[in-house]
Amino acid sequence: MALVNTGTNSYNLCRELFPLCRSVTGNGVRQTLQIIKDGYIPDLQIHEIPSGTQAFDWTVPKEWNINDAYIIDPDGNKIIDFKESNLHVVGYSVPVNKIVTLEELNEHLYSLPDQPNAIPYVTSYYKERWGFCLTDEQRKNLKPGNYKVYIDSSLTNGSLTYGELILPGKSEKEIFLSTYICHPSMANNELSGPVVTTFIVKWLISLKERKYTYRIIFIPETIGSIVYVSRNLDTLKNNVIAGFNITCVGDDRSYSYLPSRYGNTLADRVALHVLENMQSEFIKYSYLDRGSDERHYCSPGVDLPVVSVMRTKYGKYPEYHTSFDDLDLISPQGLQGAYEVLIKCIEALEKNEKLTVTVLCEPQLGKRGLYPTISSKQSTGNVRDMMNLLAYCDGSNDLLAVAEIINKPVWELYEMVSQLKDHELLSNVEE
Amino acid sequence: MALVNTGTNSYNLCRELFPLCRSVTGNGVRQTLQIIKDGYIPDLQIHEIPSGTQAFDWTVPKEWNINDAYIIDPDGNKIIDFKESNLHVVGYSVPVNKIVTLEELNEHLYSLPDQPNAIPYVTSYYKERWGFCLTDEQRKNLKPGNYKVYIDSSLTNGSLTYGELILPGKSEKEIFLSTYICHPSMANNELSGPVVTTFIVKWLISLKERKYTYRIIFIPETIGSIVYVSRNLDTLKNNVIAGFNITCVGDDRSYSYLPSRYGNTLADRVALHVLENMQSEFIKYSYLDRGSDERHYCSPGVDLPVVSVMRTKYGKYPEYHTSFDDLDLISPQGLQGAYEVLIKCIEALEKNEKLTVTVLCEPQLGKRGLYPTISSKQSTGNVRDMMNLLAYCDGSNDLLAVAEIINKPVWELYEMVSQLKDHELLSNVEE
Amino acid sequence: MALVNTGTNSYNLCRELFPLCRSVTGNGVRQTLQIIKDGYIPDLQIHEIPSGTQAFDWTVPKEWNINDAYIIDPDGNKIIDFKESNLHVVGYSVPVNKIVTLEELNEHLYSLPDQPNAIPYVTSYYKERWGFCLTDEQRKNLKPGNYKVYIDSSLTNGSLTYGELILPGKSEKEIFLSTYICHPSMANNELSGPVVTTFIVKWLISLKERKYTYRIIFIPETIGSIVYVSRNLDTLKNNVIAGFNITCVGDDRSYSYLPSRYGNTLADRVALHVLENMQSEFIKYSYLDRGSDERHYCSPGVDLPVVSVMRTKYGKYPEYHTSFDDLDLISPQGLQGAYEVLIKCIEALEKNEKLTVTVLCEPQLGKRGLYPTISSKQSTGNVRDMMNLLAYCDGSNDLLAVAEIINKPVWELYEMVSQLKDHELLSNVEE
Repeated sequence: MALVNTGTNSYNLCRELFPLCRSVTGNGVRQTLQIIKDGYIPDLQIHEIPSGTQAFDWTVPKEWNINDAYIIDPDGNKIIDFKESNLHVVGYSVPVNKIVTLEELNEHLYSLPDQPNAIPYVTSYYKERWGFCLTDEQRKNLKPGNYKVYIDSSLTNGSLTYGELILPGKSEKEIFLSTYICHPSMANNELSGPVVTTFIVKWLISLKERKYTYRIIFIPETIGSIVYVSRNLDTLKNNVIAGFNITCVGDDRSYSYLPSRYGNTLADRVALHVLENMQSEFIKYSYLDRGSDERHYCSPGVDLPVVSVMRTKYGKYPEYHTSFDDLDLISPQGLQGAYEVLIKCIEALEKNEKLTVTVLCEPQLGKRGLYPTISSKQSTGNVRDMMNLLAYCDGSNDLLAVAEIINKPVWELYEMVSQLKDHELLSNVEE
Repeated sequence: MALVNTGTNSYNLCRELFPLCRSVTGNGVRQTLQIIKDGYIPDLQIHEIPSGTQAFDWTVPKEWNINDAYIIDPDGNKIIDFKESNLHVVGYSVPVNKIVTLEELNEHLYSLPDQPNAIPYVTSYYKERWGFCLTDEQRKNLKPGNYKVYIDSSLTNGSLTYGELILPGKSEKEIFLSTYICHPSMANNELSGPVVTTFIVKWLISLKERKYTYRIIFIPETIGSIVYVSRNLDTLKNNVIAGFNITCVGDDRSYSYLPSRYGNTLADRVALHVLENMQSEFIKYSYLDRGSDERHYCSPGVDLPVVSVMRTKYGKYPEYHTSFDDLDLISPQGLQGAYEVLIKCIEALEKNEKLTVTVLCEPQLGKRGLYPTISSKQSTGNVRDMMNLLAYCDGSNDLLAVAEIINKPVWELYEMVSQLKDHELLSNVEE
Repeated sequence: MALVNTGTNSYNLCRELFPLCRSVTGNGVRQTLQIIKDGYIPDLQIHEIPSGTQAFDWTVPKEWNINDAYIIDPDGNKIIDFKESNLHVVGYSVPVNKIVTLEELNEHLYSLPDQPNAIPYVTSYYKERWGFCLTDEQRKNLKPGNYKVYIDSSLTNGSLTYGELILPGKSEKEIFLSTYICHPSMANNELSGPVVTTFIVKWLISLKERKYTYRIIFIPETIGSIVYVSRNLDTLKNNVIAGFNITCVGDDRSYSYLPSRYGNTLADRVALHVLENMQSEFIKYSYLDRGSDERHYCSPGVDLPVVSVMRTKYGKYPEYHTSFDDLDLISPQGLQGAYEVLIKCIEALEKNEKLTVTVLCEPQLGKRGLYPTISSKQSTGNVRDMMNLLAYCDGSNDLLAVAEIINKPVWELYEMVSQLKDHELLSNVEE
């Protein structure tokens, strides 16, 4: 089955992208985007926004790149090595090359006493620092003495890089997919996001026709989404009817939903309908639990209808933002499940329309072969769903609303709608 | 007490009408309407709509009549006899008179394995067939051989018959009562419907004055209501403020409510208020559970405010649409209870009005003898209901809304309203 | 701490005012108002409204005063003495001085069989009577014989007295505080009301600036509020944005809330928010439980946004309207608690405004020192409340609504709002 392969293929792409050292800027981002463009989305446009560019209240920072980093202990052993894990270096660390005492070193070390075997993920984009991250176990064993600290990084005027794809549809109204490519070697948050998005794009490209235009972006989180909104505000506000911030879509422990600011957009309705009609349980978060780019997409005055449909949400699993968020945490099944839910959301949007029945009183389905011609005690149940669908196609409800009212997954209505349109019993209400 | 007699009188009328072989057309309907007209509603208008008449998506079928029908077994015994039960023949069976094998016969037999002693009620209005219904017990005992099957029926161009009464009131706004007269010998569904409606009409005729005009129809289900709507659409849409589809009002096992399409009409509010304030429990169905003429009255574009207030709902009792739905299933008490609830609904509609208190601040009830002149710890409770009534008569609420807000059955407010109007403390708000 | 003194000071003022014999008119009211004016509110205006003045459906009654009253039993003992408790005389008793039999006396006696040791509080403002109140214990011991009954009262054309203070603020929109001064020696209902109001006024006077104008009245209940509304209707309707009927604010058993007529005014929102965010439980009554001047303030056509925030509500404690509602029932803590809750309500009104964030997308708090510059796993929670505040300051919500949405007591947001305004990240939306 094709869908199962998507999970496996997604997992393999995660594996390929995992080692790259991404950050909000720099060559790790460019390599990531290039692999996606070369292998999956040839039309992906790569944009470079110069350091120093203003974006609302923010400024694009300097570009950061790093070649190597390590610590050598008093005995001459290389005890911390960037080549082993790019989490060992605080993101955006300035270069350093000197001998420091353990006391001084400690001011630049980050570890997690509660998770003594995890390397934490730490960044400092907007204040110049240097620092190393390590397990608390390792840190406790450091003995007094002089340590050589070495970070071969650069922080220079360069640019912020992001990828963008516009897939045109019949309508200029858009569905917006945003995912981020700024985290180094971590898997659920976040390689799962760009990878699942990549496979959704492949599926979108494969569609014979698309009702909506699709705007897909691969950006660094926060500064990337702010830059993107600042450059596309009017278009986004005019055209986007629903959007998804695609993050944490790799593990298989749960499904999660995080609403838009007031939880009342079409994207919210679709996401909730799909999740509520899946076999699986899901966790419904509040917008107060937010922590990703909806902070900007849904901010006052921007007001985009963007939600997150996730597996296990950032901040809600112990491995989050540590070296334990690795390729073992995610799975082909986890990626596959997220992919399917998001596809179901997109399909529900594509198929959504306001419909009206074309005759007064119930139509006579029997003469069209849609209703049994013999009426006995048992016969009424059979076509009940079709009757219910017709009853609420009154021009005021979209198909999603009808599905909610008649307690059916919307995807079970697509064939029925098609059949009733063929019989000219349903027609679209132009909006 | 007069009301108890209504239950008994209703039951007696059920008994009289029970043997007639009604269907969606034919002489059984005419006889039924004539008995009601002769004995109870002299002004009932009988309408005949020719076969072939178009009504929206439907066509009035040929008229069906039947004189006799039977099956004779290989031993020459008459084993099925229409004269014993008119349920034995599939409604709208075409004439037949031939010898068939048991195998062939079986294709024309209907029985209920789950209810082996019940004769099912089966019809085939829109496809020409013949068939017999029998108990599964009897069917299992049929032995191989040749059977004579005989149905002396006619299916010819004729007409669909319905009864209509318009009782004028002070307002041209209407309350609409619809009941059906198309079922052969069954009692709860449906002789109870036309019988209880008949006694409600008698009561309506007896009223000194009616605020509203009443439109009461006795029609065959489905095709009858569709025909009626097609001939009266504008009037119904302009005038009907509340309507009741009167069906399944004969047994005494429960009360039931089935809402209009969105459950938000005046008829819904009245029905719910009355049922919620009765001593008895009731079952609140969804519009998704519908199965009678609200399918047409509440359909998109027709949108009449029609609900059903029933005893045990069609499809929800084991005897439904079988020979067990007989005169033992219904009772004078069951009919009486339904009659009373429906009368309470109609009274609540007649008495409903928007009221406003005529003075600012609370009126001084004491000087009008409506409030105790001595104030002590216990005295405040006594006139609390009157105070509450006055507090919410602010011109925005109808009396039904006031009753809901102050948690009183609306019928306990009628006398109070009258008293306060006499004291000129309440006045009607013209709408 | 200053606030603790308010409780004690309030209690002491209760003690001073307790012995005065107040009624809806008369010198007890005047003395009460004079003590408040002399000691606390020099600008309090005393108004006198002549007997016979019309106020909507009501008429100002004659003025009642009383010097002495007693009963002498057949043995010559003074068994009931007004000087011991002013509750012994039915309020508004006409003068009497005669010998009566026990039988005749009994028609003029009031006691409570259920509370045999309590003297009930009884009045007869609108029908001329005389009567005595006593404990049921004492009443049961009365022996047959002749009793001397003596009431030295007067019921003459005089006036109804009330106090009023208008404290101007920057806006002519008003916050309205109403309390009543018509009960003789009882403590929770009612000395607590005027006393707590007095200390709230002291606090209001002490404020450096007031956004709103404050209208505070000390009136006799019912007739006083009706008279006041009749003389100030247009101003009240145009200007009052929130009001509090201050009663039963002295004991420490509970907090209570009684809503306005529809429970949907700004006063309701503030009262509920404050009570729901206090540490204490509170009882939420319905408007159907009302029994004080909201009956007039919230009546149809008057429609003032007035609620009651109380300690234990009138009618809901056994001592209510008896001699047991005395100085032991209330406490400095009880008075203090009510004072603090009401102050919190007023502060919430003063601070309430519609705010909007001034930048698109989230502002960069880090560059303003409001956000940690290093991002690790734990850091996001720290400034979450500030982010949430900003997220919902979109020009559509007032601060109270924002507090409800983000689940914070509004008073925890004042400092944050101030800080964000200083950084020009929030601005007021003119309404």
